Amino acid sequence: MNAKIRIGIAGYGNLGKGVELALSQNPDMELVAVFSRRDPASLSLQTAGIPVYALDTIEQHKETIDVLILCGGSKDDLPHQGPHLAQWFNTVDSFDTHAAIPDYFAAVDAVAQQTQHTNIIAVGWDPGLFSINRLMGECVLPEGQTYTFWGKGLSQGHSDAVRRVDGVKAGVQYTLPIEEAVNRVRNGEMPELSTREKHRRECFVVLEEGADADQVKEAIVTMPNYFADYDTTVHFITMEELERNHSAMPHGGFVIRSGHSATHTKQTVEYALNLGSNPEFTSSVLVAYARAAYRLAQQQQYGAKTVFDIAPGLLSPKSPADLRKALL
Amino acid sequence: MNAKIRIGIAGYGNLGKGVELALSQNPDMELVAVFSRRDPASLSLQTAGIPVYALDTIEQHKETIDVLILCGGSKDDLPHQGPHLAQWFNTVDSFDTHAAIPDYFAAVDAVAQQTQHTNIIAVGWDPGLFSINRLMGECVLPEGQTYTFWGKGLSQGHSDAVRRVDGVKAGVQYTLPIEEAVNRVRNGEMPELSTREKHRRECFVVLEEGADADQVKEAIVTMPNYFADYDTTVHFITMEELERNHSAMPHGGFVIRSGHSATHTKQTVEYALNLGSNPEFTSSVLVAYARAAYRLAQQQQYGAKTVFDIAPGLLSPKSPADLRKALL
Repeated sequence: MNAKIRIGIAGYGNLGKGVELALSQNPDMELVAVFSRRDPASLSLQTAGIPVYALDTIEQHKETIDVLILCGGSKDDLPHQGPHLAQWFNTVDSFDTHAAIPDYFAAVDAVAQQTQHTNIIAVGWDPGLFSINRLMGECVLPEGQTYTFWGKGLSQGHSDAVRRVDGVKAGVQYTLPIEEAVNRVRNGEMPELSTREKHRRECFVVLEEGADADQVKEAIVTMPNYFADYDTTVHFITMEELERNHSAMPHGGFVIRSGHSATHTKQTVEYALNLGSNPEFTSSVLVAYARAAYRLAQQQQYGAKTVFDIAPGLLSPKSPADLRKALL
Repeated sequence: MNAKIRIGIAGYGNLGKGVELALSQNPDMELVAVFSRRDPASLSLQTAGIPVYALDTIEQHKETIDVLILCGGSKDDLPHQGPHLAQWFNTVDSFDTHAAIPDYFAAVDAVAQQTQHTNIIAVGWDPGLFSINRLMGECVLPEGQTYTFWGKGLSQGHSDAVRRVDGVKAGVQYTLPIEEAVNRVRNGEMPELSTREKHRRECFVVLEEGADADQVKEAIVTMPNYFADYDTTVHFITMEELERNHSAMPHGGFVIRSGHSATHTKQTVEYALNLGSNPEFTSSVLVAYARAAYRLAQQQQYGAKTVFDIAPGLLSPKSPADLRKALL
């Protein structure tokens, strides 16, 4: 039996906790340390016996960690942490600001090439598994259209926007794909769909004492960028209902490639996720790609990578021969 | 603009014709020759100006073809052709005898390593795209079950079996997934399903003059290996109906990974194909993997490969930077 792949976690929020849990399902890897900007003594992990260190001491641990999984946020943490930590570590992260990916890739790659590390960025399900399916869909059906639908799922960004409205005490927002649009795509109609025709939004809001429900509703549904382009429903509920029914973080969606072969025969490829917990699933994907990062580093395949650069077999603990025998 | 990837087709049945059509949708590749065991003068291609040569003269063309797509059958052609043609060519094939894949891989690999070619075997949708989804499903959800359902689709092997029954003049067989089983899997119940619970079979049969319908039906539904383990329906129709309604070759199916993260939260990943033409879709997949074979050969990554060894980005005509920008 080979030694286990030694994993570190940088950042201990929902995603870091999810990675810790996901590692317990992958016996070829072991969690060796958690790094946090908070006081290490203040963190209590789910696993006994794992040390927590201050993030600014992380360089001292570069010899004992094979792959560091970056669990910070894409807005404030990763743009700095990704390139910075690539100087000492092979990393995997879930950078998900789609428009900023080219710059982020370049910044990480420059460090990785210089210091000979393997750093897989933008891993998860979107970007990540959905991206792979967008790519493969257009490769196997070059003439066609690709559609991505999200939901039903809790959107963190839109929930934050709801909570910033005056008079809102607490609340969550769900993104829902519009069934009629999904069915038209599945039927191979290749429709042109507006933003409003693809998704709708549903908010569950707890009002502040004395707030005006109509004003709050109007402020939400007319909010530019977030809600104005969608049909949005607002439900007012009690704090008890919110806590009881809306504390899970489900998500999911579909990537559908609808196209035709050269004789104009309809062909459809669909990839669908139905996730009870978005952060736990994203974490599981990060852990599988940590295995690939480790192997690529062993093969001296250095530099920044994305899911597009990773052969599927590198994700599995099984040997190539076992995979061919059991799964092909 | 780079030169186009020069493609040859070995074998001109349904699959070879499909590859010819698929190449017309991929402007970075060009068909340069078709090879057949039949008299070249007897073949009429769909594309004007493409030469047809006798398969036994193929060695003479080894300098003018970048990738040869093998379109022969898995039973009689590929076990010999795959290793034989790997001595002169980079190849892609759709070898689909699952149990024989390890031996076939070894035979092709031995030649490919020796002669420095890149040979991707067992490409298509099953084995192929379904295999990738079986593999990735268990990597991102290590605790769970994987289910493959096929259909609705025309099965060539089972149609042949029907046509061998005494009293059958012509006929086709469709494999259908059983909706109730699919729904239980999608709901995350992780059921144990027998063969009979997963699929049913439907036959459309034209009787020979004077044949006994009841006898034919009994012979079909009790046939071991092919039908005895399934609920099978037999419909008797006229030759006109058969030709009018049953000459297309639709197929498809689903790979569903149903699992849970470490907190026992349900997570489901589904990959579904709905194909108007099975051979045309398989051909499209072969063509995309021919692009990968070409690139791997350029990188001197020689040997037998499967879909598990191919990074998604290698399938696309777009550059890695364009892919990161547009699709990640």
